[in-house]
Amino acid sequence: MNRLESNIAIMEPKDGLREKLEISNSEGRPLRIKLGFDPTAPDLHLGHAIVLQKLRDFQEAGHTIVVIIGDFTAAIGDPTGRNKMRPPLSDEVISRNADTYIAQLGKVVETSEIEIRRNSEWHGKLDLRQTIQLIARVTLAQVIQRDDFKTRLSSERPIHLHELLYPILQGFDSVAVDADIELGGTDQLFNNLMGRNLQESMGKPGQAVITMPLLLGLDGTDKMSKSKANYVGLTDSPEEMFGKLMSISDDLLQHYLELTTTFSADERGQIAASIERGANPMLAKKALAANVVQRYHTPELSAAAADQFARTVQEKRPGDEDHVHVSIGEFGNLVPGSHHLLDICATLAPEKSRRELKRLISGGGVRIDGVKVDDPFELVEPVANLKISIGKRLRFLLAR
Amino acid sequence: MNRLESNIAIMEPKDGLREKLEISNSEGRPLRIKLGFDPTAPDLHLGHAIVLQKLRDFQEAGHTIVVIIGDFTAAIGDPTGRNKMRPPLSDEVISRNADTYIAQLGKVVETSEIEIRRNSEWHGKLDLRQTIQLIARVTLAQVIQRDDFKTRLSSERPIHLHELLYPILQGFDSVAVDADIELGGTDQLFNNLMGRNLQESMGKPGQAVITMPLLLGLDGTDKMSKSKANYVGLTDSPEEMFGKLMSISDDLLQHYLELTTTFSADERGQIAASIERGANPMLAKKALAANVVQRYHTPELSAAAADQFARTVQEKRPGDEDHVHVSIGEFGNLVPGSHHLLDICATLAPEKSRRELKRLISGGGVRIDGVKVDDPFELVEPVANLKISIGKRLRFLLAR
Repeated sequence: MNRLESNIAIMEPKDGLREKLEISNSEGRPLRIKLGFDPTAPDLHLGHAIVLQKLRDFQEAGHTIVVIIGDFTAAIGDPTGRNKMRPPLSDEVISRNADTYIAQLGKVVETSEIEIRRNSEWHGKLDLRQTIQLIARVTLAQVIQRDDFKTRLSSERPIHLHELLYPILQGFDSVAVDADIELGGTDQLFNNLMGRNLQESMGKPGQAVITMPLLLGLDGTDKMSKSKANYVGLTDSPEEMFGKLMSISDDLLQHYLELTTTFSADERGQIAASIERGANPMLAKKALAANVVQRYHTPELSAAAADQFARTVQEKRPGDEDHVHVSIGEFGNLVPGSHHLLDICATLAPEKSRRELKRLISGGGVRIDGVKVDDPFELVEPVANLKISIGKRLRFLLAR
Repeated sequence: MNRLESNIAIMEPKDGLREKLEISNSEGRPLRIKLGFDPTAPDLHLGHAIVLQKLRDFQEAGHTIVVIIGDFTAAIGDPTGRNKMRPPLSDEVISRNADTYIAQLGKVVETSEIEIRRNSEWHGKLDLRQTIQLIARVTLAQVIQRDDFKTRLSSERPIHLHELLYPILQGFDSVAVDADIELGGTDQLFNNLMGRNLQESMGKPGQAVITMPLLLGLDGTDKMSKSKANYVGLTDSPEEMFGKLMSISDDLLQHYLELTTTFSADERGQIAASIERGANPMLAKKALAANVVQRYHTPELSAAAADQFARTVQEKRPGDEDHVHVSIGEFGNLVPGSHHLLDICATLAPEKSRRELKRLISGGGVRIDGVKVDDPFELVEPVANLKISIGKRLRFLLAR
């Protein structure tokens, strides 16, 4: 099997990839592979990496990667004002998010060679007349095929009219950049087919749509997503990545081996066979975690993370010697007794966001002297010899 | 009853007129009364005149009439290219149609005092971003309440997305001109309420919507409409108007007396009572026809039309003396036998359009020497003593 064909979940049309590769050959030009990006949420995780790996495959085969930054609608935000999570973003924030995104992209693809386009370049020029002529190419019946529209219609939750335009605008991006192929997760199938339809309705060749499978989160139930806190971020530290990957259930092992590692099918087969023969799945998880950490960091950091995991989680039961010693002085000169647990945790684990810590505390993931405290605003005095554990892997002992 | 309140079919909100009149009084300013006009179909008939009369009432009460010419969407036409009846109109055609419309408006209202606005003035300035912010104010559920959308959805006929925008754009006209009241037929209720909603959603006072009843056509079944050929045009000749009005069934008499004449409720009551007592409804129809012709022409022309009607239709049976004598020379020097019936009729009745004549011939309304000829392209030689009747009232006798 051609490497470009691996892992594909759905391809439209069925032989679209072959057709486009033939065009590339006969016309002697690289294909234009489009990937869209919404600059409101720049944190990438292992789920995104599946699509990025496919981009990388195309890039290694000599094709051109075209990343579309959806800055036009991000700058509008939610005009109904009902969705507080979608405020209008300033050009500065969009640029920063785009930079962050491209930097993370660089963990998988060669970003010096990609074409980066902002869709305000063409959407910003559309007037009402051109908008009417564009959206006239699509019927209401077509657009409400999209799952979330269908769901809202049937449950009588409102769909604001501008929302119907968004898939069309996203599709128009494909027209504007002459995409040959668009990549995305299976949840993008509808939007990306819209691009194909619009290209064809404007007399251009329609792009092939290639969707990649969605990765299940660490919890094994929902798809991996930042909002579900079941994710491994591409910029997580080696120790975090290693620890998180070791925490998945045995049932998820094959799914992760297939979609997150660089193991070949042969290698995956050998791992599966050894488990069949009675090997401890823990060993396979270590191989998985080591492979992933190596990919996003270095072999050296991967080995170190494996060592630390073995030391802190496996070889010993929690005791003082596993705890990081922290001086009470770190907590500043605040009046004793006036520290919120959340603030203390934020000082101890500065790499975690306050939002993440709050969720962790509320979920019972923080213990003081072995006792769960689930109120982020509990007042705690940071006195010497207090033991605080944050999540499964971070343990602190306060000292003078 | 205040004259402004007469004949109103539906008013939203229920006491909207009273509220607006109070505002007019307290702010010491005339109200702005909006009427929209689609410049694709400038032929006005008695059905339109019901709304125009209400405009006139407002005008006489000192308020400002604002006529919106919907040139923006007329200039786009049907971008799907599926509706051949909606080609994009040039600015020249739109201007001509608007002039024709205003001229016809002049038969009822004082056009020198009205404010005439083209909606391209504001729609032409909207970009995609502003369009998105505008349509976000409306939900899909709201817009598909419109009857023709509902019908098409349930019968699975396509609705192209731009069509959903049109009621919103029309509503935005009310925002742009700060309309206090919008007038229209009952079939405009949905669109005009959209204007009210948008004004309110933008923090302006919402217009009151006043709809006037629809007039039934001469056939008594469908609403009066040009496409149904059941109409009395405001520019019909006195004789045509008179004859057409005399042709309605007795059942339609009250409907027409109420909606097309200047008779007061008292006068209409007297007419109804006299019929109750056994008077011939023909007399009432004559009073109706005379009143309408007088209104759109002059008392003199009205009297003359009544005379001619009496002479040609009532007093005598058709004989040579009822026929207008026409010289064969009128038909030019074409080769004998090469005249289409349609061409002959067009020469005899130049006030009728070729389309109208074609329909009349096909429908069996034209006779040669008393014999129906229903093919517009039948070859007829215009020889002396040939009798040609066109419709019920036009009779010609060809002469050397």
